[in-house]
Amino acid sequence: MNVAIVGASGAVGQELLKVLDDVNFPVSTLRLFGSARSAGKSYTFRGKEVKVELLSHESDFSGVDFAFVSAGAGTSKEYAEVITRHGTVMIDNSSAFRMDSDVPLVVPEVNGDDAFNAPRGIIANPNCTTIQMVVTLEPIQKLSPIRRVHVATYQAASGAGAVAMDELMEQFKSISAGEEPKVEKFYYQLAANLIPQVDVFMENGYTKEEMKMFNETRKIMHSDEIAVSATCVRVPVLRAHSEAIWVETERPLSVEEVREAFEKAPGVVVKDSPADKEYPMPLFLSGEDPVYVGRLRKDLANPNAITFWSVSDQIRKGAALNAVQIALYMIEGKK
Amino acid sequence: MNVAIVGASGAVGQELLKVLDDVNFPVSTLRLFGSARSAGKSYTFRGKEVKVELLSHESDFSGVDFAFVSAGAGTSKEYAEVITRHGTVMIDNSSAFRMDSDVPLVVPEVNGDDAFNAPRGIIANPNCTTIQMVVTLEPIQKLSPIRRVHVATYQAASGAGAVAMDELMEQFKSISAGEEPKVEKFYYQLAANLIPQVDVFMENGYTKEEMKMFNETRKIMHSDEIAVSATCVRVPVLRAHSEAIWVETERPLSVEEVREAFEKAPGVVVKDSPADKEYPMPLFLSGEDPVYVGRLRKDLANPNAITFWSVSDQIRKGAALNAVQIALYMIEGKK
Repeated sequence: MNVAIVGASGAVGQELLKVLDDVNFPVSTLRLFGSARSAGKSYTFRGKEVKVELLSHESDFSGVDFAFVSAGAGTSKEYAEVITRHGTVMIDNSSAFRMDSDVPLVVPEVNGDDAFNAPRGIIANPNCTTIQMVVTLEPIQKLSPIRRVHVATYQAASGAGAVAMDELMEQFKSISAGEEPKVEKFYYQLAANLIPQVDVFMENGYTKEEMKMFNETRKIMHSDEIAVSATCVRVPVLRAHSEAIWVETERPLSVEEVREAFEKAPGVVVKDSPADKEYPMPLFLSGEDPVYVGRLRKDLANPNAITFWSVSDQIRKGAALNAVQIALYMIEGKK
Repeated sequence: MNVAIVGASGAVGQELLKVLDDVNFPVSTLRLFGSARSAGKSYTFRGKEVKVELLSHESDFSGVDFAFVSAGAGTSKEYAEVITRHGTVMIDNSSAFRMDSDVPLVVPEVNGDDAFNAPRGIIANPNCTTIQMVVTLEPIQKLSPIRRVHVATYQAASGAGAVAMDELMEQFKSISAGEEPKVEKFYYQLAANLIPQVDVFMENGYTKEEMKMFNETRKIMHSDEIAVSATCVRVPVLRAHSEAIWVETERPLSVEEVREAFEKAPGVVVKDSPADKEYPMPLFLSGEDPVYVGRLRKDLANPNAITFWSVSDQIRKGAALNAVQIALYMIEGKK
């Protein structure tokens, strides 16, 4: 396959390079694209140096089978025509097209087949918090239809890119030295703090990030019966996101049947042994592929609900890995 | 009033010294008690040096009106008889007596009058996460009976004492220097991590901390109709706790009426202006007295519920301040 990465120098772009290699993606040629800031830089892939080309309206994607695009919604919108013009499948990591009715929004473990219905040649990669959540909701939905989801997120700095991770580390250094930390990437100091705002606010008092969890979940799971109320919070963690989730289903489910469903579910790993103090934690699961779940128990406030805790690397499954898995699903022709 | 502080050298003991002064508590004499480790140390209160006495079975509390006890459940149990023998009111910060039927569990804004019904001379100060939550639940309960509460906590290191706060700061230094952080007070490294376990696990898969939020809330609010499902998580923040809360009431409440109730509620401060990126954050509210609420909005998953975010200093309202407020309530004879 001829592959392109657009936004090669970003946190997700860099992870895409790793993931393509890790999953043994069949790469015949690889092209890297970036802005003027990163054009000319070189990255090594499978022992070969690849130079970043400047993305422009004159860029020629002919012959490229898959373009993984992760350079922000503005870039995705501006260059979608350029990228898809000659039949390239554009797998877009931004929010630009996610809710467009003619663009499938895909998490392979949940709705991989939707990838085959992409009339514009664009497939959208969902938001990281949604990907992580739907991978765990799907096995529950198969047991009994989901009605209500309450979720509180604990989102790492990585969601705001490599620069944000660097800023958090710099803030740790500053507060350790008793100095005033530099605050640029986030609205407020994140080290030793929590910021209960991820993305901008909407009219209903929810943030865009929180509404993504509502809307994207419905689209991916093909259900307008599922209502999600999310509170999204940025926490001083480097790169894995965590979520406390309560799920109400049509019929009451036992902890045992949900555990069994999780254990069989693709992409899910159960890490749940309270007696051994074993549960998922972001520090120890950075760089890992699966969505880890633990703290599984009945919802004490709702007989029809269960609750659990999940952790997943925001840059792997929450972005780069899911994008590559979409392409793999299409290559393998699963339908 | 003649006042004693038991556990004077701990994080809460030290804060008690500050709070007694801050609220102009009428102190005639002050005695400090501690273990062999802290006995002999001196602390300044209103310009006078007070020496820490060794707490023993021979300690004489006669003449002491209020003893604020914050030295762990074991010490509280062992010395309750010694402390209350001569009529001293023991306001206990530990979990030792909280669920005893003959010990009132008091948050003055909610059930201050319960303090007058303490046959054993012991009044229990609730757990910090519960105090912070019930202060916000009470004004809602007055509008319509509460049925279900879902809450995810983001708990600071301070909940585990002064040593834990020091350990977190040391961990920030270690990771900044690229060194292996020392882990002693918590089960795992807390800096740049989240630990989804506070206190030990119970048979139902919940932690003791989470079950405190279920049981203590019912006792304080005099309602067995309220069911609380909590997920308690330790986060790398120094001293204020945060909570994402969903509350279902018998009749649906509007955001406006809940906001108005919060604005009138004692001990609650509304900090909720999304357009100005204004919401409560733990870094900026450490050392403050009120429970701050923000991010107030409808629960998108439940027409009968609303959701909000709260932050409160765990050592102030979550411990020392609430204890002192109980004593003040009794002195002022509010009934």
